[in-house]
Amino acid sequence: MKTIEQNFAVPFRYGVYFTENLFAPSNQVLADVLAQDRASGPRKVMFVVDSGVAEAHPQLLEHIHHYTLAHPDALQQVAAPLVLPGGEEAKNSKEHLQAILSSINKFGVCRHSYLIAIGGGAVLDLAGFAAAIAHRGIRHIRVPSTVLSQNDSGVGVKNGINAFGKKNFLGTFAPPFAVINDSNFLLTLEDRDWRSGISEAVKVALIKDAAFYQRIKQDAGKLAQRDMEAMQQLIHRCAELHVEHIGGPDPFELGSSRPLDFGHWAAHKLEQLSKYSLRHGEAVAIGIALDVVYSQLQGLLTEAEQDDVLDLLQELGFELFTPELAQQTPDGQLAVIQGLREFREHLGGELTIMLLRQIGVGEEVHHVDEHLVQQAIALLQKKRQPQPLSQV
Amino acid sequence: MKTIEQNFAVPFRYGVYFTENLFAPSNQVLADVLAQDRASGPRKVMFVVDSGVAEAHPQLLEHIHHYTLAHPDALQQVAAPLVLPGGEEAKNSKEHLQAILSSINKFGVCRHSYLIAIGGGAVLDLAGFAAAIAHRGIRHIRVPSTVLSQNDSGVGVKNGINAFGKKNFLGTFAPPFAVINDSNFLLTLEDRDWRSGISEAVKVALIKDAAFYQRIKQDAGKLAQRDMEAMQQLIHRCAELHVEHIGGPDPFELGSSRPLDFGHWAAHKLEQLSKYSLRHGEAVAIGIALDVVYSQLQGLLTEAEQDDVLDLLQELGFELFTPELAQQTPDGQLAVIQGLREFREHLGGELTIMLLRQIGVGEEVHHVDEHLVQQAIALLQKKRQPQPLSQV
Ligand SMILES: NC(=O)c1ccc[n+]([C@@H]2O[C@H](COP(=O)([O-])OP(=O)(O)OC[C@H]3O[C@@H](n4cnc5c(N)ncnc54)[C@H](O)[C@@H]3O)[C@@H](O)[C@H]2O)c1
Ligand SMILES: NC(=O)c1ccc[n+]([C@@H]2O[C@H](COP(=O)([O-])OP(=O)(O)OC[C@H]3O[C@@H](n4cnc5c(N)ncnc54)[C@H](O)[C@@H]3O)[C@@H](O)[C@H]2O)c1
Ligand SMILES: [Zn+2]
Ligand SMILES: [Zn+2]
Repeated sequence: MKTIEQNFAVPFRYGVYFTENLFAPSNQVLADVLAQDRASGPRKVMFVVDSGVAEAHPQLLEHIHHYTLAHPDALQQVAAPLVLPGGEEAKNSKEHLQAILSSINKFGVCRHSYLIAIGGGAVLDLAGFAAAIAHRGIRHIRVPSTVLSQNDSGVGVKNGINAFGKKNFLGTFAPPFAVINDSNFLLTLEDRDWRSGISEAVKVALIKDAAFYQRIKQDAGKLAQRDMEAMQQLIHRCAELHVEHIGGPDPFELGSSRPLDFGHWAAHKLEQLSKYSLRHGEAVAIGIALDVVYSQLQGLLTEAEQDDVLDLLQELGFELFTPELAQQTPDGQLAVIQGLREFREHLGGELTIMLLRQIGVGEEVHHVDEHLVQQAIALLQKKRQPQPLSQV
Repeated sequence: MKTIEQNFAVPFRYGVYFTENLFAPSNQVLADVLAQDRASGPRKVMFVVDSGVAEAHPQLLEHIHHYTLAHPDALQQVAAPLVLPGGEEAKNSKEHLQAILSSINKFGVCRHSYLIAIGGGAVLDLAGFAAAIAHRGIRHIRVPSTVLSQNDSGVGVKNGINAFGKKNFLGTFAPPFAVINDSNFLLTLEDRDWRSGISEAVKVALIKDAAFYQRIKQDAGKLAQRDMEAMQQLIHRCAELHVEHIGGPDPFELGSSRPLDFGHWAAHKLEQLSKYSLRHGEAVAIGIALDVVYSQLQGLLTEAEQDDVLDLLQELGFELFTPELAQQTPDGQLAVIQGLREFREHLGGELTIMLLRQIGVGEEVHHVDEHLVQQAIALLQKKRQPQPLSQV
């Protein structure tokens, strides 16, 4: 009997909005974003809030409450906001996923209602996953509260939680309804979280935009000093580059190429080996350092360029080495090398690793030389030790 | 700062193939389907098999094994097939989901590997959900083994499991890599499963294709007698209509309109109330009967047309009434009416129910009159009782 052919395309569209003080009663951004659905009545909305944000902004829940009172035609909360543990813990057990799903069920959140999540990348990944699978997908708005989530994780189309000890083992591709970046949240970040997300900007600049890289270099001192103006510039350009990339030929990553994962094969494994005491962005900085040195050892990148990147990462305040990088498995293998296999397995297809040909230009390879990885690690380990004077 | 706009479309394409004896060594269908990915080596494949199918086809696992041996360049199994309980039980606890995810993890099934599921709609919904969320989506091939899954559930883009006592509370929209209908599987179906899927054909014919409806009427006797030729015609046309509809303006059902759910608002609730002793297709037949009578009571449909449909359903062997239809909640409400609320909540947006204007032409309404529902139920209940002779 004749084969039946299915063929269609699903269009996706969302905006990444920038604001300050999202929940000030006079702020129209959220109400305007919601109005895009052209619904007649107020929307049912459920908030999920990162505990770290709730603690650092003790009046946040009250502000949300007043905001909804000030905008009764735009939204109504189905229940008090659900506050969930911030950080990787959010993604490490199914309990928090269950808590969100349970509330969705209990409070009748439907496919035309909104789950609005406020938090770091971890809570957003968790809430996005819950939103994607409840009722086969309810509308989801992300309000990222860290540098990393404002310039990278929060503006993309992926969500996920960890399972079987593996990062993002469970997840989906599910574009948000909208993303709203409120710069005010960044004021309360710990220094390491302020810094952490900068590594994703260095990453995307290195593989896509040499001018942006130079800009980051120029601003490195300011960024390290928590200059908000410089940070806003960095976040905007970094988010833009991510959004552009995702809007390219393979938004749902069906092929083998994954350029935005530059520096990430080692990073994901390091996060896991450190039991998530390393932040994602911190691990990415080390992963970038490793791949940059590896690119140099492979003869792709000059030593001058290599040092330029390593110096920048250090000026921004990143460590370039962590003991997990040299950790061995019981059978004497480098533990990060295992990460390579897991990386391939997670992405599927042919192993495809992004290296650097020059600053601003990436190059994909399909094979990694373990010896060179070892050399690269040794070099980073040495670089970290204070050099005896005679060698300087 | 300037809003960043994201805008892209994701194309999806898959074929619904028809064959007989899929795992005969000489059958090229599966190997050809896999070859569409243009991979160089053999693909890693994991099979998930419905226990009902495995029991009815005791040599199936062996045939699969020999098939893979006969096609070493096309595929290699990562492990022995995972046999999971068939029927709604598959979707009712998270344990089976966990079993699939666990195997995906253990056997290194990646985003370019294949999960091939063989079974009824329930096992396919479960396996499709697991495939959709593991590694953010691994490739999934469906081999539907019931009439219902071959002509409806298996050819679409939805998957899901039940949670919080609600049908398909968890799930995603995730198009398969391919669907392969093997008519041989139908030979071992129990009568009720042979029949069950016919209601979905009646459904789609009623709202979209009067000629198809007439065809079903013509073939009703043969269908009831398990004539394979008639059944294959029915499955092909029904699958085609479903595929066409999904390929229309709203494949992922983002709007409020859900024409293919004609007859389903009551059906989902009846399944649940019957503790899934009613098959989906059996409940759909009753749901169709209810909505057809309701359409007539509303003045949309003539009595002649109403009777024509009810007669056809009975000729096909369906019951038009089940005690759950008249079941009351502790506060004296009709339990199915609750289903209306759950239906709206699951779909989201404005309540939108498909009724019939005439055979082959649906009409959407946004309000349901509870009294008329009660009348319709009473009429179906009466119709079922043997009529005293004087009234005939
Ligand atoms: N989905 C994607 O595409 C993607 C991309 C990159 C990273 N990620 C994920 O993002 C996660 C990392 O996100 P992250 O770097 O934002 O860290 P995080 O979410 O782990 O948060 C770090 C800490 O900051 C706290 N915090 C958050 N906002 C705060 C604020 N405004 N003030 C004070 N404290 C605050 C949190 O409670 C937490 O303790 C990882 O799980 C990573 O895998 C996802
Ligand atoms: N995803 C969708 O779009 C969609 C659409 C409609 C229905 N569904 C779902 O499909 C499910 C119903 O599917 P179904 O009607 O196929 O029933 P089913 O999957 O419940 O299977 C019914 C019984 O038949 C057995 N069986 C399956 N194939 C057999 C074979 N070839 N020989 C002998 N026994 C066999 C099963 O083991 C089971 O016991 C419901 O869960 C329903 O919600 C999903
Ligand atoms: Zn990252
Ligand atoms: Zn159905």
